[in-house]
Amino acid sequence: MKNFINRVDSVLEESLDGFAAAHADLVVLGEEYEFIRRKDVRPGKVALISGGGSGHEPLHAGFVGYGMLDAACPGQIFTSPTPNQMLNAAKAVDGGAGVLFIVKNYSGDMMNFHMAAEILDQENATVIVNDDVAVENSTHTTGRRGVAGTLIVEKILGAAAERGDSLQELKILGDAVNKATATMGVALSSCTVPAAGKPTFQISATDMEVGVGIHGEPGRRRVPLASADAIAHELTTAVIEDLSLKAGQEVILLVNGFGGTPMLELYLMVKAARKVLAKSGVTVVRFLTGSYVTSLEMAGCSITVTAVNDEFLALWDAAVCTPALRWGM
Amino acid sequence: MKNFINRVDSVLEESLDGFAAAHADLVVLGEEYEFIRRKDVRPGKVALISGGGSGHEPLHAGFVGYGMLDAACPGQIFTSPTPNQMLNAAKAVDGGAGVLFIVKNYSGDMMNFHMAAEILDQENATVIVNDDVAVENSTHTTGRRGVAGTLIVEKILGAAAERGDSLQELKILGDAVNKATATMGVALSSCTVPAAGKPTFQISATDMEVGVGIHGEPGRRRVPLASADAIAHELTTAVIEDLSLKAGQEVILLVNGFGGTPMLELYLMVKAARKVLAKSGVTVVRFLTGSYVTSLEMAGCSITVTAVNDEFLALWDAAVCTPALRWGM
Repeated sequence: MKNFINRVDSVLEESLDGFAAAHADLVVLGEEYEFIRRKDVRPGKVALISGGGSGHEPLHAGFVGYGMLDAACPGQIFTSPTPNQMLNAAKAVDGGAGVLFIVKNYSGDMMNFHMAAEILDQENATVIVNDDVAVENSTHTTGRRGVAGTLIVEKILGAAAERGDSLQELKILGDAVNKATATMGVALSSCTVPAAGKPTFQISATDMEVGVGIHGEPGRRRVPLASADAIAHELTTAVIEDLSLKAGQEVILLVNGFGGTPMLELYLMVKAARKVLAKSGVTVVRFLTGSYVTSLEMAGCSITVTAVNDEFLALWDAAVCTPALRWGM
Repeated sequence: MKNFINRVDSVLEESLDGFAAAHADLVVLGEEYEFIRRKDVRPGKVALISGGGSGHEPLHAGFVGYGMLDAACPGQIFTSPTPNQMLNAAKAVDGGAGVLFIVKNYSGDMMNFHMAAEILDQENATVIVNDDVAVENSTHTTGRRGVAGTLIVEKILGAAAERGDSLQELKILGDAVNKATATMGVALSSCTVPAAGKPTFQISATDMEVGVGIHGEPGRRRVPLASADAIAHELTTAVIEDLSLKAGQEVILLVNGFGGTPMLELYLMVKAARKVLAKSGVTVVRFLTGSYVTSLEMAGCSITVTAVNDEFLALWDAAVCTPALRWGM
């Protein structure tokens, strides 16, 4: 893999400089690259903070702004941010109503966000996202991984925080959205972490990794590449079964690219996933398609479904204004 | 390259089905996959129609909606749409004030849009986009190619059409925006057209193609991969010189990914390009970063600069609501 870089050890910082310049109307870069925060902090609102290893852009910094996150802490590529980053982010965006952490379930992130939460006072809570149904436990994870469903949790919680929900209400809502959300992905190629300089995993020109994680962690099985319909069937069925979706259920469908898959193919997967959902009597009431939770340049995609009620849907539809997700304003 | 496909000969149609389903709130798919049109056609407004070969998504269909295109005609991958597609699109969206074609300068597109324009009555005009400064004439082109700057032309013209500009005013404005816009790109890898099944061009693991076209056409030279700063310097300088930008000039900067390059790197290129512009005394007043005018899964990016006046800027800032570009509403 070839990259646009100057020096391996400054990739993240230079990228954050570009990001902050490009979105100076919406966000501010914290000192020493510790966090990206909303430009306008709203007093009296619970502050939502997420973060994690970089390399998944636009997650999380791309979701900082009105109606979504107040701050995001970027770790080095595929590496957890430090507790200090979270503490300084919390200091910068705490509007007096408390701070909620949204954490993808990876051991490093869990440990560091937990340390930060302990240092912060009681007005703090954590929502853990573990939407990946592919495997229990994995390379960097005890239990299920947090993957593309994180976007949906962050969007719905962001809207709820904006309307004035309390910390406790947000914690309950976040857990409920996470529980209603399931994802499974597939990789057609590996990603390459610039500092490593070689692909994270080896995969032949004719195979795919079903159930892959967003750092290229192993999934359920390595099998020959199947048709789009067959892949969509396997991913979507796993998600439907995990959520025990019943006929008549309304859902949000997120077809998420891992970075190296063209939109042309992602939309083809939308059609394929929708057929599977329709066969189960499940109705897709909202769609999102794009490369939102990525693994650098990995080719592949994941299918995320969130079972919605009227409240989830209203919060999903609420106005959002971030670098990567914007509607209603 | 591995793809999410079912059958090579139905890739485009299946993708358009998914696209239309995912964005049913904004667009409608025409019969026989001839075009994507705005859901709500506005009588009395000049209709803007673009199109071209597929494989550049979200261009053009992703830019159909309020404040931008009225219809887009998708050809097969890297293949011009037919005159019939344009005629039927025109019929579907003509609000009585005439139809403006926005055409990227490729021989096939030029011929087919020209044929359609001849069949339509006099209330028709064409804006040709040829922003690529890399080379004069190319594989499919006489003169300069139309590339990522097309997005800027479509956005500014879309806003002007929405405010009620006449066909003639739009033609003059479109030519002016095209003239004020310049782009140059670089490829780190090839793309693979599914029907061809092999990379469009061969490139070694250590080389880059400077000045590449969005179908993988040759650029200025094939040289060893340079640093991001060096690449940004070459691309941005070429653009600055082509536009004869003077110190004090305000510009829009579009750093566009070709499909296979992560956002992390695109933002790093934003920083790098911005430094070059700053050195010339040019001020970036608006940024857009993302994979908007792509070449399937090609790794690479292009740098587009549009020299703006107050009018261009106001039209750029005006509300837009399309699948791929949305702000202000």
